[in-house]
Amino acid sequence: MNRIEALLTDMGLVLPSPKPPVANYLGTKRSGNLLFVSARVSEQRGKVSAEVNQEQAKLAARDAMLDLLAITKADIGNLDKITSILKVQGFVNSAESFKAHPQVIDGASELLIALYGESGRHARTATGAAQLPYGASIQLDMVVELSLSDYG
Amino acid sequence: MNRIEALLTDMGLVLPSPKPPVANYLGTKRSGNLLFVSARVSEQRGKVSAEVNQEQAKLAARDAMLDLLAITKADIGNLDKITSILKVQGFVNSAESFKAHPQVIDGASELLIALYGESGRHARTATGAAQLPYGASIQLDMVVELSLSDYG
Amino acid sequence: MNRIEALLTDMGLVLPSPKPPVANYLGTKRSGNLLFVSARVSEQRGKVSAEVNQEQAKLAARDAMLDLLAITKADIGNLDKITSILKVQGFVNSAESFKAHPQVIDGASELLIALYGESGRHARTATGAAQLPYGASIQLDMVVELSLSDYG
Repeated sequence: MNRIEALLTDMGLVLPSPKPPVANYLGTKRSGNLLFVSARVSEQRGKVSAEVNQEQAKLAARDAMLDLLAITKADIGNLDKITSILKVQGFVNSAESFKAHPQVIDGASELLIALYGESGRHARTATGAAQLPYGASIQLDMVVELSLSDYG
Repeated sequence: MNRIEALLTDMGLVLPSPKPPVANYLGTKRSGNLLFVSARVSEQRGKVSAEVNQEQAKLAARDAMLDLLAITKADIGNLDKITSILKVQGFVNSAESFKAHPQVIDGASELLIALYGESGRHARTATGAAQLPYGASIQLDMVVELSLSDYG
Repeated sequence: MNRIEALLTDMGLVLPSPKPPVANYLGTKRSGNLLFVSARVSEQRGKVSAEVNQEQAKLAARDAMLDLLAITKADIGNLDKITSILKVQGFVNSAESFKAHPQVIDGASELLIALYGESGRHARTATGAAQLPYGASIQLDMVVELSLSDYG
């Protein structure tokens, strides 16, 4: 019961308050046992490698994933309903010289693996962006699989 | 019968002629009741905030969504078969100083909600791009759910 | 039996050794008969139109698709299990003046069509990126459909 949130507490992490979407979209949308989770940007602002270093950016990716989990919980009620993380897409707002996008997005992926184990391992696209909404350093979205027993 | 197209007419909008893909891809591809709709770029060209203002860009996002709907209709025959809009991805060709990508992509999302109501609300990723095909201001793709009764 | 690999041989192409993911993600992740294939970057480095010409970039897109197929084969055992290519997403690391992203990503799409015929035709998003991991010219990911008989 609330196994994932208990793990977060064990890790010393707190699920943030779910932030409502900033514009005309939903936090998540479900079809069958697939849940599409809308992109969220990190609280951390600034271009990675120019204004923000790689370690700060990796932490920002972890924090943005906490925001994705918070909105997902708000929508489905319990993070334990997620049976598999399928695909994560991460954009890094980066100076042209920066090329270590995968290592930054690992901040999000490592959190998912710590929480969901093998089921938390996922396919991924980590890429660069010249600019992100609100000047954020990181933007993440994902597709997850939900338990069939919860949704038939 | 053609409820969605009747709504478009009521809104004073016209579904454009479906534009054939510009290269070696399909307009849409179906798997079960999921339909993947290829990206389309707006007729509107130019970088948002540098050459195109935010209001023009939002209108360009609406018009690009009309193009997505036109090609979807050409492929599935009737837009009423769409039971849910799952995920929209929008790229805004923007100057580095521009940060209001979500407000621009709302042009597409608001059209979907006007047409499909609650089912038209969707997960979304709105992000920046340094350049888009043909110098377009907006690029949109989406994943939608089709009626199971039409496709078994 | 291994029809797709035989076709590759007929085309004079060789499936490369599957490259393990460079960071904390899987090469592919399956849900039902959907397989999400992680993004791979091309061996070819450099900005298209500045350091790499369009023809080289198109070839790099084909080669990156060979890498996607190699990692897919490593995960599912046999490329013949793919029943349909659903969606390809391609990023082109390009100078701001470059606008022919679709023609570059055709290098990947044409390979899929040569191998899988009509089933290889797919929905697609081809777009620009200011920078890609490791300074690569091309980044590709995809979603494919697998044979239900293999996965129930």
